[in-house]
Amino acid sequence: MIIVREIKKMQKISDEKRREGKIIGFVPTMGALHEGHLELIRTARKKTDFVVVSIFVNPIQFGPKEDYRDYPRDEEGDFEKCKREGVDCVFVPHVGEMYEENFSTYVEVEGLTEGLCGKYRPGHFRGVTTVVAKLFNIVRPHLAFFGWKDAQQLLVIKRMTRDLNFDIEVVGVETVREKDGLAMSSRNWYLNEGERKQAPYLYKALLYGKEIIEKGERNAEKLKEEIKKFISKNVPLGKIQYVEIVDIENLKPLKKIKGDIMIALAVFIGKARLIDNIRLKVHDRR
Amino acid sequence: MIIVREIKKMQKISDEKRREGKIIGFVPTMGALHEGHLELIRTARKKTDFVVVSIFVNPIQFGPKEDYRDYPRDEEGDFEKCKREGVDCVFVPHVGEMYEENFSTYVEVEGLTEGLCGKYRPGHFRGVTTVVAKLFNIVRPHLAFFGWKDAQQLLVIKRMTRDLNFDIEVVGVETVREKDGLAMSSRNWYLNEGERKQAPYLYKALLYGKEIIEKGERNAEKLKEEIKKFISKNVPLGKIQYVEIVDIENLKPLKKIKGDIMIALAVFIGKARLIDNIRLKVHDRR
Repeated sequence: MIIVREIKKMQKISDEKRREGKIIGFVPTMGALHEGHLELIRTARKKTDFVVVSIFVNPIQFGPKEDYRDYPRDEEGDFEKCKREGVDCVFVPHVGEMYEENFSTYVEVEGLTEGLCGKYRPGHFRGVTTVVAKLFNIVRPHLAFFGWKDAQQLLVIKRMTRDLNFDIEVVGVETVREKDGLAMSSRNWYLNEGERKQAPYLYKALLYGKEIIEKGERNAEKLKEEIKKFISKNVPLGKIQYVEIVDIENLKPLKKIKGDIMIALAVFIGKARLIDNIRLKVHDRR
Repeated sequence: MIIVREIKKMQKISDEKRREGKIIGFVPTMGALHEGHLELIRTARKKTDFVVVSIFVNPIQFGPKEDYRDYPRDEEGDFEKCKREGVDCVFVPHVGEMYEENFSTYVEVEGLTEGLCGKYRPGHFRGVTTVVAKLFNIVRPHLAFFGWKDAQQLLVIKRMTRDLNFDIEVVGVETVREKDGLAMSSRNWYLNEGERKQAPYLYKALLYGKEIIEKGERNAEKLKEEIKKFISKNVPLGKIQYVEIVDIENLKPLKKIKGDIMIALAVFIGKARLIDNIRLKVHDRR
């Protein structure tokens, strides 16, 4: 496994692999790798010849009051996990080379970024699309893998990739969960024991919402209230940021639950801001 | 010479050329090719193995009151000129494929785009950087050629290319002028006979400014006034939009004329908005 820290060197390696006719798979991460990341890596390993994992905690996607400084970092552990999964190349750029003096170019997706997390994290998705565009130009993959846990991020990156004509297939990989249902996230590290016990109820709240839809509820407002009540009851340490029912195509909130929809939520538990979602196809009631 | 109209086909051709080890040179244009464009093409021809010229009048870089509809178009004439210059491939995308339904991703360079033309054409450079990022991803050149006549555009694209890590060398090519000094521009077509006679005085105004600096003037405000007076006198059909003395590095207006500077102007003559500039190194007076 090669460890690369310089941008030019990474570009040179990708260029060589492409010339050899190798298919490059790319898994961009912020490190602190967990089973969710490893699932992305395994999918990439199956589908491509040369797997590149990037580890870069991207400052410009954090708000001034967010957890950039505290974000968990474990470079040696991450390298070990990558090696075990048969990764070919880990790209670990320096922040000073990623954002040189007078850095001033940003990539922005409009519309899709306005609701859900975008509403509460202004500038976050601009930071994400900017760094992913940079990484796409550095790693030059044929396929890139992102998790469905960050559904809005996945859809925003798919849109960017299409709109800017990156010749890259963006592949969404299903959320990996702990046995009790909690979605894998590097931010789960922030949870203390009491918080950790309540966290699985976020996913249970989504399943509860699904059940209510299956029983016939089609009013999004009512469903949201039910889910929020469930969370308030079962996650007393939680502070709900949002619960939304949106159209999966445009991420706009629905009044009537119908078609391909997503139930998405963001809840603070202690210091950890946790997000999760489920997607389902809803038919009209008879 | 190949003529390509589909994005996927262009990407495929570039991919093949790259695999063959060919160096790809790219000249993006809006068509209505003149000697300025041909100079870009000749420079590309000299420096690269496979020369791609794109012809695309990019709607998103025109303001609502600007000349998108009237912009001169001459596809057959352009093809003829490209053939004569030994171009390998002309890329002529459809606007509907460049901007698909729900297109919503934009590339923006901050800072450099605020002054000069950016001040008077809000959204213009965002349209330019977005389409150039797209074209870079479609044509995948090693070198790309832009004219110094559009100095701000050249510097903005250089910044974007660096910031987003496009593995592309952006090459600036000197402005080509008519015998009387008028900078070549597709918009010169708009000029009637009387307007055309006055237009060369824009370049003469820049040279006049240079002369004043050489005689010792270091006060930018005074120099601008002198240049404006010169234009008012010699281009009575003109309407000055701006005359600016800026630092060539950051395009910020100077108070004291010193270092690597640019004198830039934009003047409407009739319907034509003409721009021009000269760059010079100014030493302190003894």
